Amino acid sequence: MGILTQKDFESRIAAAREIVKRNKLDAIMVFSSECEPAQVRYFADYWPSFETAAVLIPAKGDPALLIGPESLTYASARTRIPNIIQLMDFRESSQPDYPGSKLPKWKDVVARYNLKKIGLSGFYLMPYTMMLPLAKAMGGIKNVVPADDIIRPLYMQKTAAEIRCLKAAAKASEAGFKAILEAIRPGMTESELCGIATQAMTAAGAESTGYPIWCCSGPNSNQAISRPTMRKVKRGEIIHFSIGAKVEGYSASIGRPIVLGKCPKATLDFLQVGLDAANMTFDEMRAGRCAGDVAKKIHGFIADKGYGDAILYGPCHGTGQMECEYPFLETSSTYTLTAGMTFMQDMFLHRGAQGFRWEDGLLVKAKGPAEMLSSFGRQINILDR
Amino acid sequence: MGILTQKDFESRIAAAREIVKRNKLDAIMVFSSECEPAQVRYFADYWPSFETAAVLIPAKGDPALLIGPESLTYASARTRIPNIIQLMDFRESSQPDYPGSKLPKWKDVVARYNLKKIGLSGFYLMPYTMMLPLAKAMGGIKNVVPADDIIRPLYMQKTAAEIRCLKAAAKASEAGFKAILEAIRPGMTESELCGIATQAMTAAGAESTGYPIWCCSGPNSNQAISRPTMRKVKRGEIIHFSIGAKVEGYSASIGRPIVLGKCPKATLDFLQVGLDAANMTFDEMRAGRCAGDVAKKIHGFIADKGYGDAILYGPCHGTGQMECEYPFLETSSTYTLTAGMTFMQDMFLHRGAQGFRWEDGLLVKAKGPAEMLSSFGRQINILDR
Repeated sequence: MGILTQKDFESRIAAAREIVKRNKLDAIMVFSSECEPAQVRYFADYWPSFETAAVLIPAKGDPALLIGPESLTYASARTRIPNIIQLMDFRESSQPDYPGSKLPKWKDVVARYNLKKIGLSGFYLMPYTMMLPLAKAMGGIKNVVPADDIIRPLYMQKTAAEIRCLKAAAKASEAGFKAILEAIRPGMTESELCGIATQAMTAAGAESTGYPIWCCSGPNSNQAISRPTMRKVKRGEIIHFSIGAKVEGYSASIGRPIVLGKCPKATLDFLQVGLDAANMTFDEMRAGRCAGDVAKKIHGFIADKGYGDAILYGPCHGTGQMECEYPFLETSSTYTLTAGMTFMQDMFLHRGAQGFRWEDGLLVKAKGPAEMLSSFGRQINILDR
Repeated sequence: MGILTQKDFESRIAAAREIVKRNKLDAIMVFSSECEPAQVRYFADYWPSFETAAVLIPAKGDPALLIGPESLTYASARTRIPNIIQLMDFRESSQPDYPGSKLPKWKDVVARYNLKKIGLSGFYLMPYTMMLPLAKAMGGIKNVVPADDIIRPLYMQKTAAEIRCLKAAAKASEAGFKAILEAIRPGMTESELCGIATQAMTAAGAESTGYPIWCCSGPNSNQAISRPTMRKVKRGEIIHFSIGAKVEGYSASIGRPIVLGKCPKATLDFLQVGLDAANMTFDEMRAGRCAGDVAKKIHGFIADKGYGDAILYGPCHGTGQMECEYPFLETSSTYTLTAGMTFMQDMFLHRGAQGFRWEDGLLVKAKGPAEMLSSFGRQINILDR
């Protein structure tokens, strides 16, 4: 029924195991939290809630899903890795007691897999109080090496099944934004509009939102990263949306501004520069190009139009299990675009109290311009309400 | 328009400052992430997204909100603490580069506030790679002491304004569950039903959900912590919901089982034991009682009915800015209940492939049984659909 199969997950484990061997490690462990679940989900299809989790992929022997004391029934129902180990260290950060618990310790895991040196991905996420006992069991932090860089190439090149998931997520995001276009009226709150999008996305096949989605209106519109508020949207101001659905763990977003009633000429000109830059990005994202050159061209276009000061970042970032993941695409990027890479074209511009985002998923093709992950048109939405 | 005022936040800072002085510290720093935002929100009304954040409350001088490189416009629009310091360490865990950035370092913060010894709350959440440079700037980890325990009493005793927020959240959660009662039909997915609740809660004044809400149906129903799936709900099975809204940062939940069509007698008996235990909890939660005695009485009742094996935890946990926060209420709890404490009465029972939750917010009163945070009735919902 779903898109991803058990075989997809086994292939991922096998590919990671090759990375383990190539780097002369005994294992790679990936670590995830409730708000950064991507790596554990990639290998195990499990997504921690309240507690944290990890997947241990040894050079030899069966991989293991590591979870906390309260997640066994949940994890058992989801995991693609049959072997589950519960450790107290993966409990909630409020540190419940669990009197009488007899869960294994890190030293048991280290002994069971005979680990001398491991790579840890999610290195920058693991809490201090969890790293210390792990390092101790491993005979020192020198035997726990950061592995985010070495595992990342696996996530960056998408398979056909992953691209299907991303397209399904983009389609659901589209349904979310269409529901907003239908429902939005002056006086509705930013939060209410996000709720409408969530309902429409889950009705259209999303398992959830891909991140805490937002709407920013009027004076809030200059916020690039935000959360919706109880502010009521008004006529004549920019109201922009970052709406993203998740399908089988994959996130794709739609970013669009809306103006209700009359749109001031200066606002329209500003929105149009962003839209032109977004369209241009799809044309520039071609296999073989240096990523930094694309960014320079897009930033150059915006600067030529007189809005250089309005650029915050971009014009793209990687997407997959995390709506925003490696690689970023900046003027300083030196890597080469290859077919099968997926990005969010993400153009956020802001000047003074005004800002907005144009965002859509894209797939780098072997030939020609990038493919949009959804078929949703881009136009400036000025609605007579 | 909102419930909480600038003065509420200033009182919190003042109270925390007293704790700083009483513990002979130079400051307390509270640390929060996207999925554990409570402590920073408590003092600053700011809620990080993608990045992390902290609030520094010094014994002398102005408090500061500490944020990452990308959150300035968002944080500036929200913070109740005017003084904002951006540090690279609060960036996203994927570690973007920000070439040319000239943000201050920990040593600058330590020097500016002349910090010799600080308390850190959220100690168990702070990443290893963030704690190391902080500890170094502080002259060693010995000068960064865990402060979760010393700051917690502040969060545990709710003010009248906080109780109003919690009641508003309970009311919105009620609206979410009522929308489910209205809409649910066999064949709808668990995720879709959660989307419907989200839409109704935000329309009823919630800023967002209080946590990633869930629906667990049929064989998924034995999961205490979970996430909704694409499974379609069916007649004759338990379908249970944990629905929670957030209002001004405060979370209250409603947990209810539903059965569509005919309910087997054994299922009905099981649900009734949970409901009786939930009702009894409200009567038992009285000021002056030992928390552990309440848990023993409730667990004893369930065991007497022959369902002792079905108990997972509980019957209560604290609630406030986190839907699940200190104090837990377990058979091992030794503290005394006092008026003004707020809990979620949370009765999750499971046996084999079946499980369900009855959950409602409660306020411990100076006299008499606990007050329910919402006025929503508890009955077994068997719907003829």
